[in-house]
Amino acid sequence: MIKPYFHFELLHQSSKSRARVGRIHTPHGIIDTPSFVAVGTNGSLKALSNVDIDKMGLQLMFCNTYHLLLQPGTETVKKAGGLHTYINRKNPIITDSGGFQVFSLAYGGVASELKSAGNKKADGSVLKINEEGVTFRSYRDGAKIVLTPESSILAQKNLGADIIIPLDELPPYHFDPKSLKKSLDRTHRWEKRSLDTHLTDPKQQAMYAVVHGGVDLSLRKLSANLLSDLPFDGFAIGGSLGKNKQELVEVVNHTVPFLPPEKPNHLLGIGDLESIEQCVPLGIDTFDSSYPTKAARHGVLFTEQGKVKITKTSYANDFDTIEPGCPCSTCENYSKAYLNHLFKAHEPTALTLASIHNVAYMIRLMAKYREMILRNLV
Amino acid sequence: MIKPYFHFELLHQSSKSRARVGRIHTPHGIIDTPSFVAVGTNGSLKALSNVDIDKMGLQLMFCNTYHLLLQPGTETVKKAGGLHTYINRKNPIITDSGGFQVFSLAYGGVASELKSAGNKKADGSVLKINEEGVTFRSYRDGAKIVLTPESSILAQKNLGADIIIPLDELPPYHFDPKSLKKSLDRTHRWEKRSLDTHLTDPKQQAMYAVVHGGVDLSLRKLSANLLSDLPFDGFAIGGSLGKNKQELVEVVNHTVPFLPPEKPNHLLGIGDLESIEQCVPLGIDTFDSSYPTKAARHGVLFTEQGKVKITKTSYANDFDTIEPGCPCSTCENYSKAYLNHLFKAHEPTALTLASIHNVAYMIRLMAKYREMILRNLV
Repeated sequence: MIKPYFHFELLHQSSKSRARVGRIHTPHGIIDTPSFVAVGTNGSLKALSNVDIDKMGLQLMFCNTYHLLLQPGTETVKKAGGLHTYINRKNPIITDSGGFQVFSLAYGGVASELKSAGNKKADGSVLKINEEGVTFRSYRDGAKIVLTPESSILAQKNLGADIIIPLDELPPYHFDPKSLKKSLDRTHRWEKRSLDTHLTDPKQQAMYAVVHGGVDLSLRKLSANLLSDLPFDGFAIGGSLGKNKQELVEVVNHTVPFLPPEKPNHLLGIGDLESIEQCVPLGIDTFDSSYPTKAARHGVLFTEQGKVKITKTSYANDFDTIEPGCPCSTCENYSKAYLNHLFKAHEPTALTLASIHNVAYMIRLMAKYREMILRNLV
Repeated sequence: MIKPYFHFELLHQSSKSRARVGRIHTPHGIIDTPSFVAVGTNGSLKALSNVDIDKMGLQLMFCNTYHLLLQPGTETVKKAGGLHTYINRKNPIITDSGGFQVFSLAYGGVASELKSAGNKKADGSVLKINEEGVTFRSYRDGAKIVLTPESSILAQKNLGADIIIPLDELPPYHFDPKSLKKSLDRTHRWEKRSLDTHLTDPKQQAMYAVVHGGVDLSLRKLSANLLSDLPFDGFAIGGSLGKNKQELVEVVNHTVPFLPPEKPNHLLGIGDLESIEQCVPLGIDTFDSSYPTKAARHGVLFTEQGKVKITKTSYANDFDTIEPGCPCSTCENYSKAYLNHLFKAHEPTALTLASIHNVAYMIRLMAKYREMILRNLV
């Protein structure tokens, strides 16, 4: 049943847009695309149990190497037999390089950057960035950690995810063109080193390149072309994706045509409902985001009729389910009134029940997109 | 299958002690005794889903009228069709009167009382205590609420639990004998008023009296005798149970013989492992406590070999389950190492997985006690 190695099967190309339906085959099973990838930073979707999300049919989970490196450490995960065994997940996993978090510490995130109008917000834990890699201090025990293309890949080998990601530099949005080009060149060198390290012992893992270039479309083209010439198994669109949805769509729209159509692509860190709607027709195969689970924890539930803010007083006496016909265990068992109450009473169960619903919604939403694409309606 | 009305079936009386095995029949099914009663204050065991605890076989759940009165309000629960429907629980529920929390606000809890050496710790939200009842302010909206024997029972009728409890006064541990006797007399009048209100419309609910008297053994006897003469369906031992386990055991040991053996009894708010071990042989049928779930949330897991503090570094690389042979879904699916990691990473899933294990442990523990009693080994 399980294919011996990673490959992408293109099932249908929409006649209406660049949207496509496919199947990514991995050692831990199939990912039907377009697909939503839930984020389980520490090897757990917040407030959910991995066996439950397996049963719900969540096909790909995104774990963060930065976090797992610091806690519990990738050697521990390796000793357990790899991440799938350690966290007891049957379905595919993707890990990132750890770079995103370290460079967020160095430069501040794009969001905080925009708020502070370009003032860097460094917290001092990043000690050095040079050609070798990046040196930072563990927030857990103060230990000095050197993250290089080679050490990131070795960490990801210990974790053993189905899809891994090369180390890249995450330049902030406000970088000047010259600095951005310098950073891009270094990122390409780092990705090549990551790939070389990976290919010395592939272990049935696939590696996606990360296409950079910020919002500079010519750099995006350059990055896509350069990385397409290397034997990566797929392509992620990363780096700064702009300060609003318009810039995001422009970058994605411009970048996808330069990626090899026979390989899967991924949009890094983007998975809100509006972005998915706009980027599926542009040909994106997978989207990872913590938004649906985070929204759930804030009482925002997704339905076909729009978002439901479950803490609103009007739901206190609404004994219907969140969404009639939703097959999730929350809708099967509980009412909006009960969820409203659990949130108001600050019961931790509220987070679990809401998260189950939103993850189930995302799974159904993507199945609907696939259905629509097959019928050339998207 | 479901018996039409509450009754107690005594199956076996140990020849070795006062321990006994029985069955409490309720409109929502059977409670095998001795039994552990988990506390779901707001209609939810912290971090657990009610359908899951139904499946685990938790036979009785304790909900707090005080909390449900303030959020979501018992009228809402009534509109939903009662607590079982509102929270989607198939098995029996017991509710208290609300008095315990209000008097804790008035006098401070026994624990805080002992720490502050008898200085009352009132927070000002209790406005008046008189023969009618107690008036307090809602912490939610500042509304003035009058809790009387009648209003408590009407609230509990709205909730519709299988077993309900009359309003009592909770005198603090340090009360002088004269004040204690005065309080006891009032409690008896309140319990009688509660019973009268209940009996005007029983709605298939059972009512347990609450035996008071603090650590004064003659008052305990007086209370047990007086309440036994009234048509209560069962008897709870409440009030101040002393400042240590020795006093608790003395009170229980002295009180149980004055209760009608053909009716079930309950020990209010006590359910730690040591107290259960000491009080089962004294003839206690049911124990409610939030301790097992609270301990779980602090990373303390119960096993036959003793308590496991799962956050200890030595468990970081321990890939065995918490307890070999434990049939709970946590032990079935996850290792100590993974739980250690989830706790250290502050993942909310840790609370759920740990709570599942401890509740499952309590269910198995009580089954073992029943087995031992049947064989006259306890």
